[in-house]
Amino acid sequence: MSRRYDSRTTIFSPEGRLYQVEYAQEAIANAGTAIGILAADGVVLACEKKVTSKLLDKDGSAEKLYHINDQMMCAVAGMTADALILVNNARVTAQTHLKTYNEEIPCELLIKRLCDVKQGYTQHGGLRPFGVSFLYAGYDDRYQFQLYTSNPSGNYSGWKATAIGANNSAAQTLLKKDYASDMSLRGACELAIKVLSKTVDSSNLNSDKLEFATLSLGADGRVVRKIWSELDVDLLIKELGVLEKADEE
Amino acid sequence: MSRRYDSRTTIFSPEGRLYQVEYAQEAIANAGTAIGILAADGVVLACEKKVTSKLLDKDGSAEKLYHINDQMMCAVAGMTADALILVNNARVTAQTHLKTYNEEIPCELLIKRLCDVKQGYTQHGGLRPFGVSFLYAGYDDRYQFQLYTSNPSGNYSGWKATAIGANNSAAQTLLKKDYASDMSLRGACELAIKVLSKTVDSSNLNSDKLEFATLSLGADGRVVRKIWSELDVDLLIKELGVLEKADEE
Amino acid sequence: MSRRYDSRTTIFSPEGRLYQVEYAQEAIANAGTAIGILAADGVVLACEKKVTSKLLDKDGSAEKLYHINDQMMCAVAGMTADALILVNNARVTAQTHLKTYNEEIPCELLIKRLCDVKQGYTQHGGLRPFGVSFLYAGYDDRYQFQLYTSNPSGNYSGWKATAIGANNSAAQTLLKKDYASDMSLRGACELAIKVLSKTVDSSNLNSDKLEFATLSLGADGRVVRKIWSELDVDLLIKELGVLEKADEE
Amino acid sequence: MSRRYDSRTTIFSPEGRLYQVEYAQEAIANAGTAIGILAADGVVLACEKKVTSKLLDKDGSAEKLYHINDQMMCAVAGMTADALILVNNARVTAQTHLKTYNEEIPCELLIKRLCDVKQGYTQHGGLRPFGVSFLYAGYDDRYQFQLYTSNPSGNYSGWKATAIGANNSAAQTLLKKDYASDMSLRGACELAIKVLSKTVDSSNLNSDKLEFATLSLGADGRVVRKIWSELDVDLLIKELGVLEKADEE
Amino acid sequence: MSRRYDSRTTIFSPEGRLYQVEYAQEAIANAGTAIGILAADGVVLACEKKVTSKLLDKDGSAEKLYHINDQMMCAVAGMTADALILVNNARVTAQTHLKTYNEEIPCELLIKRLCDVKQGYTQHGGLRPFGVSFLYAGYDDRYQFQLYTSNPSGNYSGWKATAIGANNSAAQTLLKKDYASDMSLRGACELAIKVLSKTVDSSNLNSDKLEFATLSLGADGRVVRKIWSELDVDLLIKELGVLEKADEE
Amino acid sequence: MSRRYDSRTTIFSPEGRLYQVEYAQEAIANAGTAIGILAADGVVLACEKKVTSKLLDKDGSAEKLYHINDQMMCAVAGMTADALILVNNARVTAQTHLKTYNEEIPCELLIKRLCDVKQGYTQHGGLRPFGVSFLYAGYDDRYQFQLYTSNPSGNYSGWKATAIGANNSAAQTLLKKDYASDMSLRGACELAIKVLSKTVDSSNLNSDKLEFATLSLGADGRVVRKIWSELDVDLLIKELGVLEKADEE
Amino acid sequence: MSRRYDSRTTIFSPEGRLYQVEYAQEAIANAGTAIGILAADGVVLACEKKVTSKLLDKDGSAEKLYHINDQMMCAVAGMTADALILVNNARVTAQTHLKTYNEEIPCELLIKRLCDVKQGYTQHGGLRPFGVSFLYAGYDDRYQFQLYTSNPSGNYSGWKATAIGANNSAAQTLLKKDYASDMSLRGACELAIKVLSKTVDSSNLNSDKLEFATLSLGADGRVVRKIWSELDVDLLIKELGVLEKADEE
Repeated sequence: MSRRYDSRTTIFSPEGRLYQVEYAQEAIANAGTAIGILAADGVVLACEKKVTSKLLDKDGSAEKLYHINDQMMCAVAGMTADALILVNNARVTAQTHLKTYNEEIPCELLIKRLCDVKQGYTQHGGLRPFGVSFLYAGYDDRYQFQLYTSNPSGNYSGWKATAIGANNSAAQTLLKKDYASDMSLRGACELAIKVLSKTVDSSNLNSDKLEFATLSLGADGRVVRKIWSELDVDLLIKELGVLEKADEE
Repeated sequence: MSRRYDSRTTIFSPEGRLYQVEYAQEAIANAGTAIGILAADGVVLACEKKVTSKLLDKDGSAEKLYHINDQMMCAVAGMTADALILVNNARVTAQTHLKTYNEEIPCELLIKRLCDVKQGYTQHGGLRPFGVSFLYAGYDDRYQFQLYTSNPSGNYSGWKATAIGANNSAAQTLLKKDYASDMSLRGACELAIKVLSKTVDSSNLNSDKLEFATLSLGADGRVVRKIWSELDVDLLIKELGVLEKADEE
Repeated sequence: MSRRYDSRTTIFSPEGRLYQVEYAQEAIANAGTAIGILAADGVVLACEKKVTSKLLDKDGSAEKLYHINDQMMCAVAGMTADALILVNNARVTAQTHLKTYNEEIPCELLIKRLCDVKQGYTQHGGLRPFGVSFLYAGYDDRYQFQLYTSNPSGNYSGWKATAIGANNSAAQTLLKKDYASDMSLRGACELAIKVLSKTVDSSNLNSDKLEFATLSLGADGRVVRKIWSELDVDLLIKELGVLEKADEE
Repeated sequence: MSRRYDSRTTIFSPEGRLYQVEYAQEAIANAGTAIGILAADGVVLACEKKVTSKLLDKDGSAEKLYHINDQMMCAVAGMTADALILVNNARVTAQTHLKTYNEEIPCELLIKRLCDVKQGYTQHGGLRPFGVSFLYAGYDDRYQFQLYTSNPSGNYSGWKATAIGANNSAAQTLLKKDYASDMSLRGACELAIKVLSKTVDSSNLNSDKLEFATLSLGADGRVVRKIWSELDVDLLIKELGVLEKADEE
Repeated sequence: MSRRYDSRTTIFSPEGRLYQVEYAQEAIANAGTAIGILAADGVVLACEKKVTSKLLDKDGSAEKLYHINDQMMCAVAGMTADALILVNNARVTAQTHLKTYNEEIPCELLIKRLCDVKQGYTQHGGLRPFGVSFLYAGYDDRYQFQLYTSNPSGNYSGWKATAIGANNSAAQTLLKKDYASDMSLRGACELAIKVLSKTVDSSNLNSDKLEFATLSLGADGRVVRKIWSELDVDLLIKELGVLEKADEE
Repeated sequence: MSRRYDSRTTIFSPEGRLYQVEYAQEAIANAGTAIGILAADGVVLACEKKVTSKLLDKDGSAEKLYHINDQMMCAVAGMTADALILVNNARVTAQTHLKTYNEEIPCELLIKRLCDVKQGYTQHGGLRPFGVSFLYAGYDDRYQFQLYTSNPSGNYSGWKATAIGANNSAAQTLLKKDYASDMSLRGACELAIKVLSKTVDSSNLNSDKLEFATLSLGADGRVVRKIWSELDVDLLIKELGVLEKADEE
Repeated sequence: MSRRYDSRTTIFSPEGRLYQVEYAQEAIANAGTAIGILAADGVVLACEKKVTSKLLDKDGSAEKLYHINDQMMCAVAGMTADALILVNNARVTAQTHLKTYNEEIPCELLIKRLCDVKQGYTQHGGLRPFGVSFLYAGYDDRYQFQLYTSNPSGNYSGWKATAIGANNSAAQTLLKKDYASDMSLRGACELAIKVLSKTVDSSNLNSDKLEFATLSLGADGRVVRKIWSELDVDLLIKELGVLEKADEE
């Protein structure tokens, strides 16, 4: 019976549901897991790469991680083409704010603007929702490091640690167990790998399957955004393996 | 048979009903309860938080309470993304009025403008109603403290005490029983907690489950808007517990 | 079979009917009764309040009575949010006329403009009719006191006494029986109460159930618009009760 | 089978019919009869009033007769709200012409413009035809007195005598029998009453049931438009009754 | 099965047909016949009048014949209201050309512009084709006298003699038999009557049933457009009757 | 099952087909054959005329051949009204280019612009594809003589010899057999007649059934566009008949 | 059941799929294979030609290869008319960037802009996706030679070697086996032929069936774009045949 109400974003079902928005979330449920963890001295975003081929040219650009401005990055889960539209929108919003007020846009304000766009696609005719969820890692002067998610409905919320995409509830359970609010960024990276190693469907986790990005403060007090090279990722995995073995012994 | 008339806001059913508006209200019926009480010296808004997780980053922002301008706040029940659009609209309307006339917008005028927007989404094609109800707490020079609600149809009304969201009728019955028009703000806060403790589905009410905001007049005669910290909320709950026990003895 | 033609305002049924307009009138048939009576020295509008709660804040504003300009008021039956849109439209039209020609807009002209808007919503696609009927009480230099109604189709007509909303035909029968064209405003008010007391579904008629507004000429020849306080309403009811008893004896 | 082609003005049926236009004409077939007769020295328009109530305020305005400009009037049959839109349109067209060329608009030109509007509503999507037919009585320097009709399709034609609305074919048969092209205006009025008395469903024809308007030339050669008072109508009916009796004897 | 493809102008049927355009032509197939014949010294247009009533006011205007500019006329078959829109469009196009280039618009160019409009109504959504065919008689400096037809599809073609409307194929067969390219205008008029007398469904052909227009060159070399008076038409019919009898003897 | 996907240009079928475009091609498959042959010293376009009547006025204009600019012509197969819109568009494009750059538009560029228009009608809602295919013969400085076709999908391609319309595949087989790339224009004309005589459904090929146009270079090096007179066509056919007989002997 | 969700780009299926986008990809699955290989010193694009006829005029223009700007080319698989729209869009974007910033547009930026357009056609009503996939070969100062693909959804990705169109997965398997990242452009061309000879459905591969384009650096350090002549293609095939035989021996 749900079928009568699931073909447009402009109709509620009798139970007050918007099926098209829920279907859009289904598109995300099959996308690679992305994890974000807020540490005392930074934020880490870690994504599972679903499509891998040795012929892919990975030179210079991450698949699921995007810079927004000098103080924000995001990870996406869902339809990449949809994500690009919104990332572009976010960049323009951020630069317009910077130019108008001569200060970086506060993180939450930027996300709110983006979610206003998303919401519009769930309420007006002749449109479908954006089939993509985001993890935002950001820094601003008022609230320092921050981590947010947003989904196709246009909702957003702030988190200390969370996951989107496939297996996100399993990942969240693991995060809830091991997260400590006084974690260092290094500890957060290790936790991210630990969680992904259990949720990603792969016997052998390595840089082919993972993308990492961190946000931290440099010595000069400026924000340092870093999308990790494959070497760095592999190194971290290796060190963790050694540690774990040490733990086991 | 209702099904022939329930898929658009632009058609009446033979009984003169707009089913889509009623379905939108269904979306609100599952949202957390929000209560508003008008006291002699202020207004209190209290909300139940439905989604809680220790990983949520609650730093600085309430989930269901929003500032509109220096003299108004609101609580929402329903779809958050829809609410954000309207809150933003309200803020712009308020500031435009302030800038044009050099005085704060009268509460009812602001709410009427917002409801005009809501109404439009129930009468024009290719749109769905906003899936959100509001509680507005406001102060203006003419009518002092005021409390209003508005719903997806674009209707609004002034109240001394009322509730929206899940269990709102149970809450209203409790309010009707215990409300006194000469209540102090402190008494209103206590009544709000009392009502929520009976309607919220939780054995142990604490600041994880509640959000509180009050509007009162400061010593200098200016309006004081306060979204309570978790500490303040827990303190109030504790004091009430002591009082109740004292009552019981 | 009517069902093939009842889902849009842009199609006639084979009998030349517009079902959507008729359904909109159905929405009004369930709204509280409103009565208007044209007296020699004024006009009275009286409405039944359907929703009543001791928690409602009735401070300062009537629920179903609206000022339009210095010489006109109206009572509504039907969907309040729809009514507000049209009342706002009427106010702007009235002020624009006043500013342009430096005289109050003639009553019928204002109503005609409003009905043009209403008609448009019954002829163009992607819209539904306004689910509201109006009683207008007005005064202008040419025709003095006047009483009009308009309905969702965009029709309007002038009356000496009429009723809209629930039980309007019963009320009209009563009016037809007792109306005298040389009635004083006081007599018209008494007639309004008498009629409402028989049509409103309530054993005990008081100011909780009624709203009253009158238009008359002040000593200085200016129009006096008055929305009655609850006290005044209750006083009138009481006096009538005394009179009736006197009558009965 | 006609049902596949009767829900929009933008589709022809296989026989080349526009059902929606025909349905609109159905709406007119139930409206009160209106008769127009072109006399040597004027034109008369006479309408049956369907809705009558002693509470209706008939002060100053006819129900189905409208002035267009100083030399034209019209009678309507069908949906009044639709008629008002077109009458307003006609007035603006007439005044614009007067202002632009400093002469009254020729009758046929005005009607053609109005019919262009009507036609548009039978050819473009998202619209329904205007549910109203008109009788136009006009005078211009070139063709002197003229009588036209137009219908929902946007067709118009000139007549010496014709009828629209309920029983129009019966009325036309009577007109065809008794019309003489050298009739005086007085004779035309009498013929109109005679025809209406046979087609209107009422045992006792009087000014409650009738509206009369005449167009003639005054002593100064200017056009005299007159919507008759109830007194004048009743007087005419009475005189005719006397005459008829005289005839019968 | 054709039914799946016959409700919009924007869909082809699997055989590549546009049913709506064909249905529009059906509307024309029931309209009065119109005949055009190109003579050496002029063009004649002759139409059958379908609606006749002695009460119709035929003063000054033909029912199916229209002037376009000083050198062109047209006859229509089909929906009159649709025709008026296009005739008006043609007049504006012709005058615009005259004003811009200071010369009369070439006949074919004008017709092409009109057909561009017609075509647009067969290709864009939310529209229906114009339900009307035209016969155009024109003169320009390059090609002298010319005769064209256009139909609802937006096609047009030049003819020496042709017919549109009811019985057009019968009429064309008769024309093919008797047409001679060196005919005089007088001979063409006689041929037109002869053909109509056989195709029009009437025992007694007279000016009540016929409209005639001719285009010829005056003594001063200027184009003479003439819509015939009823007298002229009757005279021609009478003379032909005499001739025929003479022939028969 | 194809029926679910064949009613709009905005939906693909599950096999990735656009049925409406294919149906438009069906409309062309019934139109008269048109053949184009590129010779060393020119191009010939030859069309079969489907509608013939001795009453058609063929004075001065071909039925299926159009000039585009001084160096291009085209032949059409399909719906003439659609073709006229595109031909007009092509002429404006060509003249705009000429005026802007002071050189004739390159052939392929013009065709590409036209095909962009065609493509738009296969991808946007509320439209149908143009029901017409073209053969373009052109000359420009860079590539000299050229021959192209385009179809309703907006595809175009360059050919040495090709055919569109009815029997186009039979015609193409014949062309493939006899075409030689060093043919003279005269030889190409003869080949065109030979092919048409076998594909056109007529026992006796003559100028009533054929239209011919050629593009060649004049003695002064300028492009000569020629739409053949009926005389020239008949002469060519006659000469070929003599040759053939000679061949047979 | 998928059928309920496959007729518009504006609805998700319950599994979060966009069927129309998948159907568009089906249109590409039947198009000729196109292969791109990134070598150390250049890029090669090779396409299978599906439609071949000795009458096609191949003078000067490739069928499936397009220049975008001085440093980029692309190969297409799918609907050619759709491709032309996007190629034109790309050229304008590239030139606008060049004119605005006085530098060639970075490859990825151009592709991103094009994909934004593609994405829009998968999210807004009344449109269908573009039925075409691209292979882009480009060079810019930052990343030197690059190879990308994009598909109807608006996704794009960078590759070292990949294939689109028919048999693309077979071709990719072959590429994965034989690709070496230190290949020379010559080696890449040989690999392209080898792969195509196995995937193209033809016993005898030659220049009739193939199109080749390469991007390399000239002696002066400028980018050299070359669409190969048929001679060059045949020569390469011949040399490879010799080599293979040598290999076999």
